[in-house]
Amino acid sequence: MITVEEAQARILESIAPLQTERAPVYTCLDRVLAEPLLADRDLPPFNRSTFDGFAIASQEAANGTRAFSIQATAFAGEPQLALQKPDSCIEIMTGAPVPEGADCVIKIEDTDKDGAVAQLKEGIVAKPSLGVHQQGSDAETGQELLKPGCRLTAKEIAIAASIGKSELLVAKDPSIVIVTTGNELVDIASVPLPHQIRRSNDLSLSLALRSSGYQRVDRHHLADDPEETEAFVADALGKYDVLILAGGVSKGKKDYLPEALQKAGVRKAFQWVSQRPGKPLWFGVSETSPQHPRVFALPGNPVSCFTCLHRYVLPALDLASGLTEKPIHNALLSEPFRFPPPLTLFLPASLHIDKEARCWATPLPFNTSGDFVSVASTDGFLELPATQSEFEKGSALPFYPWSV
Amino acid sequence: MITVEEAQARILESIAPLQTERAPVYTCLDRVLAEPLLADRDLPPFNRSTFDGFAIASQEAANGTRAFSIQATAFAGEPQLALQKPDSCIEIMTGAPVPEGADCVIKIEDTDKDGAVAQLKEGIVAKPSLGVHQQGSDAETGQELLKPGCRLTAKEIAIAASIGKSELLVAKDPSIVIVTTGNELVDIASVPLPHQIRRSNDLSLSLALRSSGYQRVDRHHLADDPEETEAFVADALGKYDVLILAGGVSKGKKDYLPEALQKAGVRKAFQWVSQRPGKPLWFGVSETSPQHPRVFALPGNPVSCFTCLHRYVLPALDLASGLTEKPIHNALLSEPFRFPPPLTLFLPASLHIDKEARCWATPLPFNTSGDFVSVASTDGFLELPATQSEFEKGSALPFYPWSV
Repeated sequence: MITVEEAQARILESIAPLQTERAPVYTCLDRVLAEPLLADRDLPPFNRSTFDGFAIASQEAANGTRAFSIQATAFAGEPQLALQKPDSCIEIMTGAPVPEGADCVIKIEDTDKDGAVAQLKEGIVAKPSLGVHQQGSDAETGQELLKPGCRLTAKEIAIAASIGKSELLVAKDPSIVIVTTGNELVDIASVPLPHQIRRSNDLSLSLALRSSGYQRVDRHHLADDPEETEAFVADALGKYDVLILAGGVSKGKKDYLPEALQKAGVRKAFQWVSQRPGKPLWFGVSETSPQHPRVFALPGNPVSCFTCLHRYVLPALDLASGLTEKPIHNALLSEPFRFPPPLTLFLPASLHIDKEARCWATPLPFNTSGDFVSVASTDGFLELPATQSEFEKGSALPFYPWSV
Repeated sequence: MITVEEAQARILESIAPLQTERAPVYTCLDRVLAEPLLADRDLPPFNRSTFDGFAIASQEAANGTRAFSIQATAFAGEPQLALQKPDSCIEIMTGAPVPEGADCVIKIEDTDKDGAVAQLKEGIVAKPSLGVHQQGSDAETGQELLKPGCRLTAKEIAIAASIGKSELLVAKDPSIVIVTTGNELVDIASVPLPHQIRRSNDLSLSLALRSSGYQRVDRHHLADDPEETEAFVADALGKYDVLILAGGVSKGKKDYLPEALQKAGVRKAFQWVSQRPGKPLWFGVSETSPQHPRVFALPGNPVSCFTCLHRYVLPALDLASGLTEKPIHNALLSEPFRFPPPLTLFLPASLHIDKEARCWATPLPFNTSGDFVSVASTDGFLELPATQSEFEKGSALPFYPWSV
């Protein structure tokens, strides 16, 4: 049996970066950027008016001029105009280029317009740059706007659009198969016999993966049958980057997966981790299949399975995708807690942020690790280290959020 | 000009609940549940073994028996067996029904197996319920497992699957159109002229909506042309539940939208809010179109637009969807801040959670409200109330996260 830290280290050291591919920017939500994005020109590309108003030379106002003859109107989307005389002005719309010779825009409500003359209202002072979003003030040509390794959300994609990237280089979305096992499991739509249970791990895992940015997820259910298991494993290792098995690898008599994996050339990196839930966790790497798929065998219990996905599988996929490492934040235990066994405890908990902006985690009073229903009310899990057994109220402990 | 609180109240009081629809459970990620989910039978439905081991009657062990003759093997997915004699046991796999007459499962590693006899190891105590996930202990038949009003993530959908819900009643996904305006805006793939800018608001808004669970989002760009604007508005009011306009409603000479909206029967609920950015915010409701589409006209500036989406539009859509209200959490201002104008300030900020689990928000040192590039490095915005102008380091202020 190895520790959580060692299990994590063995998984992460086995991870190779995924390949990259170009994808249309519209489709890149939640993908991981694999190239730096540089400004293709100054941002903004010209001195841009931030108001509807009148563009003037501020020096002229400083010299005492209060009335400016209106020479023309500058619209957004039209080429830059130029002031003809120091005491003339150009009526200007928000977003239009500030005219050559002007360095300031006076808001329309700060002026009185009288025919072809705009008069500054009393007390209004014209300062250089007032109402002007200066060319290059957000970024200069060639400046790095985004580094590789970020997961692309709406705002990063908007930046890519603004610099003309209609395609982006992103990490390939790994192909994943979720394999459930167990003759006791039946389809959602079935009416189960008393000893049967409806299958749900395939959904909880595949949807948590999707929520975390991994879309290429297939699901497959294996009956407890050694031939079917062997045939499926051999085939899947040739087709997928990652196999996630839910169940079938503890010490049960119908746990055919360990042998099938070994026969198919998957080298076991470890099994058994000193943690609760999830002790039977198994991890291996295919030595024979060209893509060397990684195989995670998670315990079949729904809470164990979901917890191990978040603690081990998602961080491994994020590393393979080149995602910049995210810090794990602490939350404060809201009540004293005792857990004597020398095991790391993953304790489902609900988060609450108080008025002083402190994050509190209230642990689930749980009966057994199979209680997935009450887990639905939690926001993630606290990690209680194996080296300690008494935890005071207010202890700061790492908190892993469920993917949402 | 009205306050932020009043603008919010006027929007929310105008919102009608969306209709509901049945959707396949597989497709319900991020949808809002519109029915309670009840346990269709006890969960678990039988006394379920949580170990691989031997099922015995704990009373027999309490009476001093240490060796139990192995009568049979119970597999998951097979009907419940029954103990034939008090001192016999049944070898049992994880997930199998605990046999009638047995009330405890001894782990395989806590026994010595000798032929057809399983012997409890020294010191091993058999207690009632040990290794048994009791029938009905997670939930009893008819118990409410999930309330309507939650946004469905992986774990809620797994619960729906476990109770046989292959379809769920969810709020309809509203049909939304994002309308950008302005002749200065060109396509991503275009090489802009010096006075032109690539369009990005349509992407930032539509992808932020998608990330927040709203998938039915179209995009349309309008040239600055009064006839085209009128025709589009009239058509869109018949087709969409929500129109989100980006730009075109300030006081500019080519802002044709206010008139087009009025002509099409949209009643303005308000315009101008005492906030920065986003002062020109406009909101109205169609009085003539059958679905009474809501119309949000956001300022065209990218940061204003994105901020107003998060502060006003998303909460309105969440309310219409029946989502249970989420609390707005505070974050602590990481440095003193001064903002004298009597306006509510939406201040983009990066979140940092310290070791004591306190959330700190570091405001962006921003030049102008047009600086979308630096907004990409932030996690959301602090709301600084209009009633105060000096904010000390450590002030606890509401923090609105960007959708991710």
